[in-house]
Amino acid sequence: MIEDKKGTILPQLQAARKAKQVMLKLGLEQKKTVLAGIAEALRSHVGEIITENRRDLERMNPLDSKYDRLLLDESRIESLAKSVLDVSKLADPTGQVLSSREVANGLRIEKKSVPLGVVGVIYESRPNVTIDVASLCIQSGNVCLLRGGSDAWYTNSFLVRLIQDVLIQQHLDEHIVQLLPTDRELVTELLEATAFVDIIIPRGSQSLIDFVRQNAKVPVIETGAGVCHTFVDDSADLDMAAKIVANAKISRPSVCNSLDTVLVHRTVVSEFLAKLFPFFVESKVTVFADSESDAILKSLDFPHLENAQESDYGREFLDLMCSVKVVASLEEALEHIANYSSKHSECIVSENQQNITTFMESVDAAAVYANASTRFTDGAEFGLGAEIGISTQKLHARGPFALEKLVTEKWFVTGQGQIR
Amino acid sequence: MIEDKKGTILPQLQAARKAKQVMLKLGLEQKKTVLAGIAEALRSHVGEIITENRRDLERMNPLDSKYDRLLLDESRIESLAKSVLDVSKLADPTGQVLSSREVANGLRIEKKSVPLGVVGVIYESRPNVTIDVASLCIQSGNVCLLRGGSDAWYTNSFLVRLIQDVLIQQHLDEHIVQLLPTDRELVTELLEATAFVDIIIPRGSQSLIDFVRQNAKVPVIETGAGVCHTFVDDSADLDMAAKIVANAKISRPSVCNSLDTVLVHRTVVSEFLAKLFPFFVESKVTVFADSESDAILKSLDFPHLENAQESDYGREFLDLMCSVKVVASLEEALEHIANYSSKHSECIVSENQQNITTFMESVDAAAVYANASTRFTDGAEFGLGAEIGISTQKLHARGPFALEKLVTEKWFVTGQGQIR
Repeated sequence: MIEDKKGTILPQLQAARKAKQVMLKLGLEQKKTVLAGIAEALRSHVGEIITENRRDLERMNPLDSKYDRLLLDESRIESLAKSVLDVSKLADPTGQVLSSREVANGLRIEKKSVPLGVVGVIYESRPNVTIDVASLCIQSGNVCLLRGGSDAWYTNSFLVRLIQDVLIQQHLDEHIVQLLPTDRELVTELLEATAFVDIIIPRGSQSLIDFVRQNAKVPVIETGAGVCHTFVDDSADLDMAAKIVANAKISRPSVCNSLDTVLVHRTVVSEFLAKLFPFFVESKVTVFADSESDAILKSLDFPHLENAQESDYGREFLDLMCSVKVVASLEEALEHIANYSSKHSECIVSENQQNITTFMESVDAAAVYANASTRFTDGAEFGLGAEIGISTQKLHARGPFALEKLVTEKWFVTGQGQIR
Repeated sequence: MIEDKKGTILPQLQAARKAKQVMLKLGLEQKKTVLAGIAEALRSHVGEIITENRRDLERMNPLDSKYDRLLLDESRIESLAKSVLDVSKLADPTGQVLSSREVANGLRIEKKSVPLGVVGVIYESRPNVTIDVASLCIQSGNVCLLRGGSDAWYTNSFLVRLIQDVLIQQHLDEHIVQLLPTDRELVTELLEATAFVDIIIPRGSQSLIDFVRQNAKVPVIETGAGVCHTFVDDSADLDMAAKIVANAKISRPSVCNSLDTVLVHRTVVSEFLAKLFPFFVESKVTVFADSESDAILKSLDFPHLENAQESDYGREFLDLMCSVKVVASLEEALEHIANYSSKHSECIVSENQQNITTFMESVDAAAVYANASTRFTDGAEFGLGAEIGISTQKLHARGPFALEKLVTEKWFVTGQGQIR
């Protein structure tokens, strides 16, 4: 029992709802001042943050894959401070007039962007999420309820205390940013708090996301899995294709925008695989090959080769592994993608403009690429700043879910006594 | 057993997914031609539509409140045809460039609006929904799966057959618009068909919406209840306030944007209720009054008076009934609304600009009004054309859910071999 267990988060929910009103009155300059204060607080408390972080690390096996994600050191804390300042430089997504009209009866009808209200975020052991989410929510005028993993309790408690001290110094309600206890039952309370919480964002593993989706009554924005294909067309520049495929697989295999399946046009498969060969050998990529590509790779003595099973298509590898399939046409590639894609990021490498257009228009995904690595699907790369994740759903936010989508719309109707 | 029961809608789901590709290639002119064909088909089959509609009506008790909703006659069929043509005049919501930038590495990154894909709509006995939804989906490039009530089976079957004949005549895939069988188990199949259906819209009673929300795995857009308040400020023009309140309650009490609770500033309550009195007496409105307003209305001999219980606040009456509460201040009104509102439409009647601004900024609702009836919350009144309903949720669509929101976003990234 490392945290306070009261059996309910109702007081925190109520305080969040009250703090919403404070946020609505906060101008951009004041939000920037708060974020500058948070960056400054991080920089001036490096030693204490590391001490609290060690208390968490001591409770974890250093061989656990979560250990590195949990670890904060001087340079990581400095990047956190920098990322807070980066967020403060982004345009205010609220208060934008999205449409404005005066209708025949004289009513003025304006639609403006406004904060979502109270944002609940459920995440795991990364303490950087605490700082990222808090700064994105402050800049977009939202109150946030942070439910981090119990592994990071001491670190998160200290970071949130730092933020709350900045809020208090600036004469603002400290409940704008709150850390919730980590009991499992209290997560359920958060997921069902439709009267207090406007949106829940799960950030972490697929099992966490599934749990939230299945149990939430509050609307959820999902950041889902990425099963990403790259199709090498018969007109492709094969040197370019090999570099794009290698980069999409190798540069960071553990992330959702990395490549999972290469589809290659039969006409160019031998030449293409020969060009891809040195990249994959050097990085020890394991290939799950269909029979045609298997024969070619065998003849090249490719070292890490497996026979692809049906389940290796539509599989998110998140590792130095990928599946390869030979196709007879663009149409066959499109059909494969329609059947196996998770609608995240899909790419064609081609010099045929007609094929590029057909591919980009037909493929149903958050991001479609021509002649570039799918690894670019990212808020910062797309020029949106920090992101909360990549949304693979179609409602509200699709693709990088960044500051500009932490808002909703509101209709302002002004009359002089109009009745209907 | 009036319809085909196969135990699965899989073939229809598969046909819908295939038809998506046809829709992506349809230009605005072609969509207009389809809608013109549908309007024409409705006009040239009035007799047969009425015959099929009678087969449904004969199965229903004429005293059932659904009887009138189900009934189609010559003039209603003509309005259906007109509404199809109205939809065809709306701007194409797809293909709009929402953002476009070339980033430092030379990648061109465009965000465009695209159809949602396959839209499932679950509704009850109104056959006009069949025509409204089909025309909105065609104009926005979406395939639609219509699951109407079994009460309207013959009518809906005939209407959908008419639409499909138009599609076939125009050499298009008839599966762009499909009617689903009405078995309860097959609704569940639709609600779980995440591989085929992109969005589900329930349209009808609260119990239908609740059923869909609880059982859907496909994302849902809800059009929820409206618990609407009007606050009469101490600075209000009381003649205007009485007319606005009367209109908001009386003009169409059965709809979601009608008034449920009047909040009145104590300073003006006697004078205001005296002015409201004749409107409410004439229309036989029942008032659930708090003790202060009860005393005043009693002294006026108001005929339809009840003591308000706690449950009469936050209650959606959908009838010639409303609750009244006296408040001491704008702040008390705001607090009441925050506690009881369903976040649909909320109004202040006031001549004090400061109070109007505070009210409109602070109240968390899809639409906020100053000095006009909440009855205006409607797609057509807001200049958006036909609507699928009023969304009280904050994600994707808020307020009138019309053609412009039947789209999602898609990122188009074009490179020359960029890797990360």
